[in-house]
Amino acid sequence: MTDRDFDTQDWQVRDRAHYLHPFTDHAGLRQTGSRIAAHAEGIHVWDTDGNRMIDGLSGLGCVNLGYGRRELVEAVAREMAELSYCPSFFRTSHRAAITLAETLTGLLPDHLNHVFFQSSGSEANETAMRLVRRFWDLEGRPEKRVIIARELAYHGSTHMAASLSGIPPMYGAGGDVPLPGVVHIRTPYRYRHGRDMDPAEFGVVAARWLEEKILEIGPDRVAAFVAEPAQSAGGAICPPETYWPEIQRICRKYDVLLVLDEVVMGFGRTGKWFGHRYYGIEPDLMQLGKGITSGYLPLSATVISDRVADVLIDKGGEWAHGYTYSGHPACCAVALENIRILTEERIVERAEAELVPAFAAGIRSFVDHPLIGDCRSVGLMGGLEIVRDKATGEAFPYEAHVGDHCSAEALKRGLALRANGDTMSLMPPLVTTPDQIAEIFAIAREAIDATARHFGAM
Amino acid sequence: MTDRDFDTQDWQVRDRAHYLHPFTDHAGLRQTGSRIAAHAEGIHVWDTDGNRMIDGLSGLGCVNLGYGRRELVEAVAREMAELSYCPSFFRTSHRAAITLAETLTGLLPDHLNHVFFQSSGSEANETAMRLVRRFWDLEGRPEKRVIIARELAYHGSTHMAASLSGIPPMYGAGGDVPLPGVVHIRTPYRYRHGRDMDPAEFGVVAARWLEEKILEIGPDRVAAFVAEPAQSAGGAICPPETYWPEIQRICRKYDVLLVLDEVVMGFGRTGKWFGHRYYGIEPDLMQLGKGITSGYLPLSATVISDRVADVLIDKGGEWAHGYTYSGHPACCAVALENIRILTEERIVERAEAELVPAFAAGIRSFVDHPLIGDCRSVGLMGGLEIVRDKATGEAFPYEAHVGDHCSAEALKRGLALRANGDTMSLMPPLVTTPDQIAEIFAIAREAIDATARHFGAM
Repeated sequence: MTDRDFDTQDWQVRDRAHYLHPFTDHAGLRQTGSRIAAHAEGIHVWDTDGNRMIDGLSGLGCVNLGYGRRELVEAVAREMAELSYCPSFFRTSHRAAITLAETLTGLLPDHLNHVFFQSSGSEANETAMRLVRRFWDLEGRPEKRVIIARELAYHGSTHMAASLSGIPPMYGAGGDVPLPGVVHIRTPYRYRHGRDMDPAEFGVVAARWLEEKILEIGPDRVAAFVAEPAQSAGGAICPPETYWPEIQRICRKYDVLLVLDEVVMGFGRTGKWFGHRYYGIEPDLMQLGKGITSGYLPLSATVISDRVADVLIDKGGEWAHGYTYSGHPACCAVALENIRILTEERIVERAEAELVPAFAAGIRSFVDHPLIGDCRSVGLMGGLEIVRDKATGEAFPYEAHVGDHCSAEALKRGLALRANGDTMSLMPPLVTTPDQIAEIFAIAREAIDATARHFGAM
Repeated sequence: MTDRDFDTQDWQVRDRAHYLHPFTDHAGLRQTGSRIAAHAEGIHVWDTDGNRMIDGLSGLGCVNLGYGRRELVEAVAREMAELSYCPSFFRTSHRAAITLAETLTGLLPDHLNHVFFQSSGSEANETAMRLVRRFWDLEGRPEKRVIIARELAYHGSTHMAASLSGIPPMYGAGGDVPLPGVVHIRTPYRYRHGRDMDPAEFGVVAARWLEEKILEIGPDRVAAFVAEPAQSAGGAICPPETYWPEIQRICRKYDVLLVLDEVVMGFGRTGKWFGHRYYGIEPDLMQLGKGITSGYLPLSATVISDRVADVLIDKGGEWAHGYTYSGHPACCAVALENIRILTEERIVERAEAELVPAFAAGIRSFVDHPLIGDCRSVGLMGGLEIVRDKATGEAFPYEAHVGDHCSAEALKRGLALRANGDTMSLMPPLVTTPDQIAEIFAIAREAIDATARHFGAM
């Protein structure tokens, strides 16, 4: 990358000719051309035309520490110069992977002491699902096989991870997903499934959907329940306080493993270090990713409880599962440096104290907006759900693409604001300042106002 | 990783307490403890006790350029300082991903012009399989669904990638693999399936196993055939020259997509830049990984032909598939620098001219060894198959773990030599010198002799 010329159009032509982007309508992209990102620092990203954008999404919910921290670059260069690659096959290990595994278990509840590494959240979910069924096989209960996941979940794009996900357009992306043995229940989406209920009451009702499904399938056939603490890609769905304790009770009662996908929520998104701390959850397996490196390099971890790990180790022989890049030295080193900075600079604690209240207030400030049916947030993740009719909650027709319109209005004004369906999502970096939080909401309001005017709601 | 103390035992204790390695018998590992890798340069790896090992395996078949090249470290640091993360969602792109996509297509046949990025070979195979079925859906032929793969194949560890793989212990690792719709045929493993045949004759016979399977299933139901050009993890299985032309003819005849997993063979392993050049294959989809970055960072690419890409783009709308780290800037930048060095230093061409003949001769030098039933190689990948009875090809019983014994004998003498079942595999870096090739085979001979003595064959 020594060629630093800034002819955007040239980059767009070459982009279109050869690069197939993820989750993209390429026919549509060919008409508009890509925005070419050039430089990023803190919470800002500049494109090749010099436009500055506030990244209200932390990339894809990963850049918790913000862009361009020199210490992370240096940690990578240091490790890579020493050990540019190392397999953890063949009874080999290395210091960055060991130290990271130890560091992670130190941050987690006492019963979570074992770590398996991969490069992505998808792979972490794949590992967790293979492990769940392996565990029940080794326990002599091979009939425990069914995985229960949730509607509007997002767990990744590989065949199993896409199957766990509950976002129907993903099933159309090929591969005969969802796979057999994966079923979905409704999610604690109060605005759509329990608007008339008290939140505490709704939390218990929503959790009981799991119990109903377990009883329908038969507890002896259910291997695990998989869920995110709160759902980001599904549209910032934040469960009431009563939801997780009841889920925990149900999983214990029927001996169903509780698998918690903390890929987005982990490393501070909720204002606590992890989603399970915020909601008080004790999972059997946990997937970490994204914020584990603040996106500086690809890495994910599957954290495994003593109960599961002991069976795998004592009874399992060789577990024939793993990846070339399981425990890659540079990726582990950058995670360690990221965690060191988050810890020493008290970034999660400061975000909780200094940003979360302002962020929650910013989200709630749309409660009377004519275009917004529901305002919800947890920590630094929030969603504003656009509706056509505030009284009934009626949505705009899909063809209106109201969310995409609003995203475009925000981007014109220098803010990345994501449309998850018709819910406008925000997940700013944890290093955002209070002034920048105010700036984000000011732009979001302009974008939503402009959208409201365009669609005749204002 | 500033803590550079060298107390190996302490690292081993911490390793055992928290780090679950891939493809490992952890009960066994707890008895021996891990070797702790500390530093690597060129083709050598040093452990925390100061022992030097020649890496005859290029890590896991990935470190084609050797360890510790400063230019690659600098390329990563440069890119990461500029753009530490960038999603390619939201109609955004960046220069490293664009340049890499363009560079790769420039190295490949004319009909391969589109690139999708992931972080691992497993993910590349997952992408390819989703895309294959998506393609046939869009072509109005949704009944074309069955994927044909091969025995002893290795394609990865996620549910679909493990399903494509033809290594039975992997099916025991959990997850109900192979998935429905994936079937396996025999592989062109002449020593086991056609020892009495002329190689050219056997190649055609082995290719016809594909035709037989297609006809058994019905050509209208078969979506794709997936294969590695030559098989590494399966035990260095190298097809006769007649195999691939016949496979190509069969795929064309029945309109079955040919999906080529070049994760190991790509970037010089065969002595040509890619396996398809060596064997003369024209795939519809191709997976690249490992050597694309020489293992310096996790990256894989799925390369897509115009035929498939045009349908996806023109008829597909949004393809709801992708990864947070699709096209990660630092990973793309390190791949670009790796390819620049391979190209400018003519490393593949020099390996072909200066190393491959000596490597092939080294492998063949075991033809009369009493413990070795078969010697085979392509480029810088070779296998020596250990047998109990050279006349009949009878193998040692599984419980003898003869391959693992031989690996341990090699490691004692400072050489990483892998046991794939009872086949001892070598895949040295492309930057190995002729003298080092001689050293590798001298140690391999000592290890195999010692194994022969131990098992009473010498």
